[in-house]
Amino acid sequence: MEWTRVEVPTTARAQMIDISDSVAAELEKTVMKNGTCSVYMPHTTAGLTINENADPDVTRDILTGLARLVPVTGDYRHAEGNSDAHIKASLMGFSLKVPVIDGRLALGTWQALYFCEFDGPRHRYVLVGFMDG
Amino acid sequence: MEWTRVEVPTTARAQMIDISDSVAAELEKTVMKNGTCSVYMPHTTAGLTINENADPDVTRDILTGLARLVPVTGDYRHAEGNSDAHIKASLMGFSLKVPVIDGRLALGTWQALYFCEFDGPRHRYVLVGFMDG
Amino acid sequence: MEWTRVEVPTTARAQMIDISDSVAAELEKTVMKNGTCSVYMPHTTAGLTINENADPDVTRDILTGLARLVPVTGDYRHAEGNSDAHIKASLMGFSLKVPVIDGRLALGTWQALYFCEFDGPRHRYVLVGFMDG
Repeated sequence: MEWTRVEVPTTARAQMIDISDSVAAELEKTVMKNGTCSVYMPHTTAGLTINENADPDVTRDILTGLARLVPVTGDYRHAEGNSDAHIKASLMGFSLKVPVIDGRLALGTWQALYFCEFDGPRHRYVLVGFMDG
Repeated sequence: MEWTRVEVPTTARAQMIDISDSVAAELEKTVMKNGTCSVYMPHTTAGLTINENADPDVTRDILTGLARLVPVTGDYRHAEGNSDAHIKASLMGFSLKVPVIDGRLALGTWQALYFCEFDGPRHRYVLVGFMDG
Repeated sequence: MEWTRVEVPTTARAQMIDISDSVAAELEKTVMKNGTCSVYMPHTTAGLTINENADPDVTRDILTGLARLVPVTGDYRHAEGNSDAHIKASLMGFSLKVPVIDGRLALGTWQALYFCEFDGPRHRYVLVGFMDG
């Protein structure tokens, strides 16, 4: 099993970037028909999630909802001013697993894979791997 | 590796449904002794989690706690009126992984696998797969 | 594939314990070069996450932030007085997956694996397994 690095440049402090196509492009380089696709987040102020990509208001509402739950300023001691980003990253999570069926990512009809930037803009990357079980 | 579809009908807007037995039934159809069971959520307004199934007040308290954190109405733009459900789904997550040991799901003593409906009632399903590593 | 039990004694009600070295020690007992490390939480009032271990204020801020989001007392019915711990565990999650590359856990520069105790102190454990795909 090999892990591949996929670059994800971000352009705002908080941003959800659809990385489904980048991950699917890595799958196409393999010959796997049925198995699992894993995506891993090596950073601590960005997270991974899945959600709807049909209406851009959904990701807008998720980011707004997270910002309301975990404000940028608050009872924080970490001196870098990004404690909210560390908390939001843990709420979203650091890995995703998606089934591969018939050589394709078996995302649901409305699903996309999202890189959730909470302390950008930065040069980021994720690790992508495939397991045929 | 094969992925199997398990149907999960839901009956309320917000509901946690114990799917442990349904997932264990899929495991019994295999000959796997030691490995990993994966459950994948293909929807965007329902999530997956693990928690206690001994006292039904626990899932009641989780749903009530999530409803307090992420109200149904708020600063949302998505026109379908279910932005809270999208956020809650991302907070819970879209996949679960449980060890399989000696041919059985190695859930902890008090653990059960929960399908978390946040925008029901709907006809839902999850994908279940097993890897022997 | 084998799952190994790693003991995690906790000493406070809420506490984030860096288990990276314990998990890496299990990896060293294998001959795996490239694959995936899985960590599973068998409890219902403790969760798993990844975050920064360079500045201890980060985990302090995460615990404080979670305590503000999900107070110990509130609209809870579960009689054991630990409903907040059940909710926090579901927010963090019950499994972690980390890439293994060249025989080492491929954690990001600032990352560590954290056992998140929310209802301690207790004798706890996690299950650790490795898959070479």
